[in-house]
Amino acid sequence: MRLISYAWQGKASFGAVKGDGVVDLAPAFADRAADLRDFVGLDALDEARAYVEGATPVAALTDITFLPVIPNPDKIIMAAVNYDDHRIEAGRDRTENPVLFLRLAESQTGHGAPLKAPPESHHFDYEGEIAVVIGKGGRRIARDQALDHVAGYSIYNDASIRDWQRHTSQFTAGKNWNDTGAFGPWLVTPDEIGDYRDMALETRLNGQVLQSCVASDMIFDVEALIAYISTWTHLRHGDVIVTGTCGGVGFKRVPPIFMRDGDVVEVEVSKIGILRNPIANETV
Amino acid sequence: MRLISYAWQGKASFGAVKGDGVVDLAPAFADRAADLRDFVGLDALDEARAYVEGATPVAALTDITFLPVIPNPDKIIMAAVNYDDHRIEAGRDRTENPVLFLRLAESQTGHGAPLKAPPESHHFDYEGEIAVVIGKGGRRIARDQALDHVAGYSIYNDASIRDWQRHTSQFTAGKNWNDTGAFGPWLVTPDEIGDYRDMALETRLNGQVLQSCVASDMIFDVEALIAYISTWTHLRHGDVIVTGTCGGVGFKRVPPIFMRDGDVVEVEVSKIGILRNPIANETV
Repeated sequence: MRLISYAWQGKASFGAVKGDGVVDLAPAFADRAADLRDFVGLDALDEARAYVEGATPVAALTDITFLPVIPNPDKIIMAAVNYDDHRIEAGRDRTENPVLFLRLAESQTGHGAPLKAPPESHHFDYEGEIAVVIGKGGRRIARDQALDHVAGYSIYNDASIRDWQRHTSQFTAGKNWNDTGAFGPWLVTPDEIGDYRDMALETRLNGQVLQSCVASDMIFDVEALIAYISTWTHLRHGDVIVTGTCGGVGFKRVPPIFMRDGDVVEVEVSKIGILRNPIANETV
Repeated sequence: MRLISYAWQGKASFGAVKGDGVVDLAPAFADRAADLRDFVGLDALDEARAYVEGATPVAALTDITFLPVIPNPDKIIMAAVNYDDHRIEAGRDRTENPVLFLRLAESQTGHGAPLKAPPESHHFDYEGEIAVVIGKGGRRIARDQALDHVAGYSIYNDASIRDWQRHTSQFTAGKNWNDTGAFGPWLVTPDEIGDYRDMALETRLNGQVLQSCVASDMIFDVEALIAYISTWTHLRHGDVIVTGTCGGVGFKRVPPIFMRDGDVVEVEVSKIGILRNPIANETV
């Protein structure tokens, strides 16, 4: 099943993709879920499938506004330098534990919405990544049970303001600009993914392929990330773990490539789809 | 005015300190504020003062459970190495911009609640800090208007799992353990603080003074932090900026001092009060 957060006729809701349209799931789960974050904590996929089967889409996918898959996660935990080719191009040593930073929900935006290039920088870079959404919560989750806690997979563009990322040792200021964390278009449940390691990722800027990798290339795999992170924080339904980008980012190219007003950036992940965003100068 | 988030008779609410008791503000602002995060966005201090004047406390301060001052902030933005004596003991270079990391709301706890020492580490360290809570939201807030956006000041103990903080370049994993971010006991409005630079901070472990500094020693002052942070993120009412710790942390002492089961840690800030927490081993 493909689950989405969306707005239509001025109202935010959550639903499931059916053909070229979206079935609103809010009415069927009104007593239990205000949004997709709540829904993924319910363990109600069979019930939702039955409901979708008999329901008529409320709108076409081409007519809705895509919201970030989880617009309001408690936590967005980002893995950095989690592919060797990117680690090497970034000039960083291999570490015994995952390199992690946090993103704010405030920084997110949906499929199709413009990523905003702020006037304070011309170093606006893409990072195509695979996102994991937590379903069943837990603390100190064992590696061999980690995948039981996954509600599904999606796509993230961890767009970064590189010069601000490098202001200090901590990445925070370069990774949290409003309208830079693209998350979409939808969440695909694990039954449709199969072995997540087979997912292939490709990032394109104006059609040119700039990143290309396979999930099995991750240094710390999804199980390792969940086990490590849940050692120190209680993972909750709707929490998002973004698994890191692979080689080919713009700021390490010669000459560097940065995203500019009018560009279109796409991150495609097999078995999920394409997350597409135009770039627009932010007007202040 | 001293504003608190608290629980009493099993119910969470927010209120104001009156004498030795707490006046529940929830009934007076039920149509506009579900919690203290909402309330500080209202610009309703005069109204609240009038209400408190005529109201009877619902409970004594000794009977309530203190919750984190803002239990559910959108953002908790932490300044690191923001006092020169701590920067030097930590062996870090001075930077042109603030060093910032994020804390998760999940990691917070209230005044009086135990800070949990996890079994995975024996390197549990204190960091006494002054916290700033945002009232009026804004983006790209100018330095000379920054203090207009402050709802008040409080105390934070940014308790840190030092070995996990040093797993990689990013501090995330050492700064976000559940039950480590103590925030309290209350928020003091700016009219009772006067010039925030005059606030003196002292951290004590079992009565021994281990940190001692004055807010005017900050490298990046409150105005600079608000201006820098709001360049990249829209600050919202209830967002928390924690301004960094000063020299004297435990892990840089010879021999090092770490917090253990049965210890009591206090952070006192003049014009605010004392944030006191026992340390307890986490039982897994």
